[in-house]
Amino acid sequence: MRQDNSVKPEACNPLGLSACAKARDGTRDRAPRRAPASTIERALLKAMLMSLGNPPVALVPWGGQAITSGNGEAGHLKVHILDPGALLRLALDPLFQFGELYSLGRIEVEGDLTALIETINEAMGIKPGWGSRLLGLIHAPRSNLLGRSSANIHHHYDLGNDFYALWLDRQLLYTCAYFPEPLTGLEDAQVAKMDHICRKLRLRPGDRVVEAGCGWGALALHMARRYGASVRAYNLSREQITYAKARARAEGLDQRVDFVEDDYRAIRGQYDVFVSVGMLEHVGRNHYRELGQVIDRCLDKRGRGFIHAIGTDHAAPLNPWIERRIFPGAYPPTLREMMAVFEPAGLSVLDVENLRLHYAKTLEHWLARFETSADRVEAMFGPLFVRAWRLYLCGSLAAFRSGNLQLFQVLFQRNGDNDLPWTRAHLYGDGHAPWTTPTS
Amino acid sequence: MRQDNSVKPEACNPLGLSACAKARDGTRDRAPRRAPASTIERALLKAMLMSLGNPPVALVPWGGQAITSGNGEAGHLKVHILDPGALLRLALDPLFQFGELYSLGRIEVEGDLTALIETINEAMGIKPGWGSRLLGLIHAPRSNLLGRSSANIHHHYDLGNDFYALWLDRQLLYTCAYFPEPLTGLEDAQVAKMDHICRKLRLRPGDRVVEAGCGWGALALHMARRYGASVRAYNLSREQITYAKARARAEGLDQRVDFVEDDYRAIRGQYDVFVSVGMLEHVGRNHYRELGQVIDRCLDKRGRGFIHAIGTDHAAPLNPWIERRIFPGAYPPTLREMMAVFEPAGLSVLDVENLRLHYAKTLEHWLARFETSADRVEAMFGPLFVRAWRLYLCGSLAAFRSGNLQLFQVLFQRNGDNDLPWTRAHLYGDGHAPWTTPTS
Repeated sequence: MRQDNSVKPEACNPLGLSACAKARDGTRDRAPRRAPASTIERALLKAMLMSLGNPPVALVPWGGQAITSGNGEAGHLKVHILDPGALLRLALDPLFQFGELYSLGRIEVEGDLTALIETINEAMGIKPGWGSRLLGLIHAPRSNLLGRSSANIHHHYDLGNDFYALWLDRQLLYTCAYFPEPLTGLEDAQVAKMDHICRKLRLRPGDRVVEAGCGWGALALHMARRYGASVRAYNLSREQITYAKARARAEGLDQRVDFVEDDYRAIRGQYDVFVSVGMLEHVGRNHYRELGQVIDRCLDKRGRGFIHAIGTDHAAPLNPWIERRIFPGAYPPTLREMMAVFEPAGLSVLDVENLRLHYAKTLEHWLARFETSADRVEAMFGPLFVRAWRLYLCGSLAAFRSGNLQLFQVLFQRNGDNDLPWTRAHLYGDGHAPWTTPTS
Repeated sequence: MRQDNSVKPEACNPLGLSACAKARDGTRDRAPRRAPASTIERALLKAMLMSLGNPPVALVPWGGQAITSGNGEAGHLKVHILDPGALLRLALDPLFQFGELYSLGRIEVEGDLTALIETINEAMGIKPGWGSRLLGLIHAPRSNLLGRSSANIHHHYDLGNDFYALWLDRQLLYTCAYFPEPLTGLEDAQVAKMDHICRKLRLRPGDRVVEAGCGWGALALHMARRYGASVRAYNLSREQITYAKARARAEGLDQRVDFVEDDYRAIRGQYDVFVSVGMLEHVGRNHYRELGQVIDRCLDKRGRGFIHAIGTDHAAPLNPWIERRIFPGAYPPTLREMMAVFEPAGLSVLDVENLRLHYAKTLEHWLARFETSADRVEAMFGPLFVRAWRLYLCGSLAAFRSGNLQLFQVLFQRNGDNDLPWTRAHLYGDGHAPWTTPTS
């Protein structure tokens, strides 16, 4: 681990980006009396376009004259590379350096950033996997051994509740929402997501639920408030747990919801329901079997379980810039890989739903809110951070739109348990599902 | 391959069972002045019960005195082993010989046969896989290379349409039905299954559909008649294809439905929809990637696809007796194994539904109809055949009830195609799905 990746949530440079002084004070000059790009540099740009599958995008070096693939119209999407050093870094390690240089302002994008990434994703195609194609780069996610997981989670989730409150929904759900209709608002869609999950789990009053990775606690509180469940919820992020505990007390739910600052591997006790939303991405492939053992150990004989996670259709590492700067240790699995949680643990998969376009929609909302609050984010963390997070949100939106990322909801139960829902119709009826009467 | 497994559909012994003359003429004597089971034989029976996980079942040797595990009540479920040779064969190769000896009448079951198998399944548990536990037996399914597949399919599906008409529904659907309510009848449930599939595929008038493994053609005809699709349907079974062609002509649908007697690997052309119901079990694990290539080759850029297949939660071979006597070459995959069809072919899984209990319900109906027609089946194929098929139907019913078998419906589309259903609500509304108006 490099020192510059360590976690400093209180600093104004939480991503560990090393900007030059000029970039920091915002006075950088885009082309300071520099000779135009040479023939070799222009050939390098042309080769880069080819390796991207010749997308209809223009690469514009510091001299000004655009390079295009000649395929399609490249008029509205342009990538300005502002200095020869940036070009060199980009050529050597494009998947990491694009994010790095964009954040530092040494690359500028003209036109819609999401559309640019989507266009490149489409040109590259998905087989054999974004992230491993360009220069044969294989990027291993960081370890998620017990000690390291905590630092990885701290890096991202402890940026401060105030920051997330600027662009998430009121209840701070930082996972894919469920939009019953495309025009449903984000606030409603996050509540609908929680209800969709509770219906899938046929949550009943008195059910004992364990949640692995509970964020700011919205789902745990919803399950207790609306379905009468008692919930123990685990999370490694101290800021989130502190927030969630305060909210439980304020709502008078602290007798029914117990928030625990700990790893999923520390889960003890017996439960009717296991639920985990947006944690599997941080578990690491080597630990899926271990997660299955935890579920097997804590789930009652008649227990039900649910995992919601970002995934892929084809095994490939996360983009290395996202993995290093935004989500250390993260890896989105394929369905095939996810089965390592269930199969050895004797769990039976009942239902898999792919909500990829719902995550794209969620990200559209987040991005719009983020841009509205960009000035306040800049005041908190500086301009580089704003650029980095803009790229992360746009890149994620593009990835869900172009199918590089999927969102899988997996419902499971112990193999051989016949207390199963007969069909899935109860997920789609009006009002509440027939198996329960909500308590409020 | 042993010679006695070869296919003789016209013979009165289509399973290739070798019965002794006594069994054949129905005059066999259950205990012809035989000494009671010895101490060693009784110890062997006790050991067999232990290796089955001590189910509440009595094993009764020819002498008469029952052996029980002492766990639970074994009063109503008894397995009579009628001669020392049967005991020896059962001890050496229980998973194959139970079916063989039961068919031959050298084992008799007192009490409900399905309940007996279910009880044993439950006692054995599922991890690490029924079929590989007892004596560490590993049973490899037969090859499904091009030539062999045809013989394997012929073995089962060409027993004669008259035979299947005795116990399937009117339209001869020989796959899991979909019961909107548990009390839905079999005829309606098979139609509901076809509509469920067409809704999942959002079938539209004019869609070009290719079906791999079409049975007697009910789904292909339903898609054309009710949804206005044009369908090319492949099947290796000559009897089924002949029947399906005649039905298409009789209904005036032969311009829109083309039945082809050929293997899925022979599929040519471009289609909007790929559908396969109950074929993957016969494809063989080594050929999943090949099936994916066929789908990739024949599916239009905006195509949708659907596979419906028996599967398992934990990789294990099919019971060897079923595989040899009933379904040569069959293997029910895990979801993990099924992904070998989709991942390398750039296909994105949208929806997986596990309909295990619907297959149990389907089998209840089939079994009841089979028993009603047992005399006519016996007149066609003899008493051994009736016993073998009774065991096959009861064993399958027990396996779906106890979770040894699953039924997976997998909906997929090309990775990155955004023409997706927004939610799954259209599968559950009343009347017809909003994307189309049925043509009749």
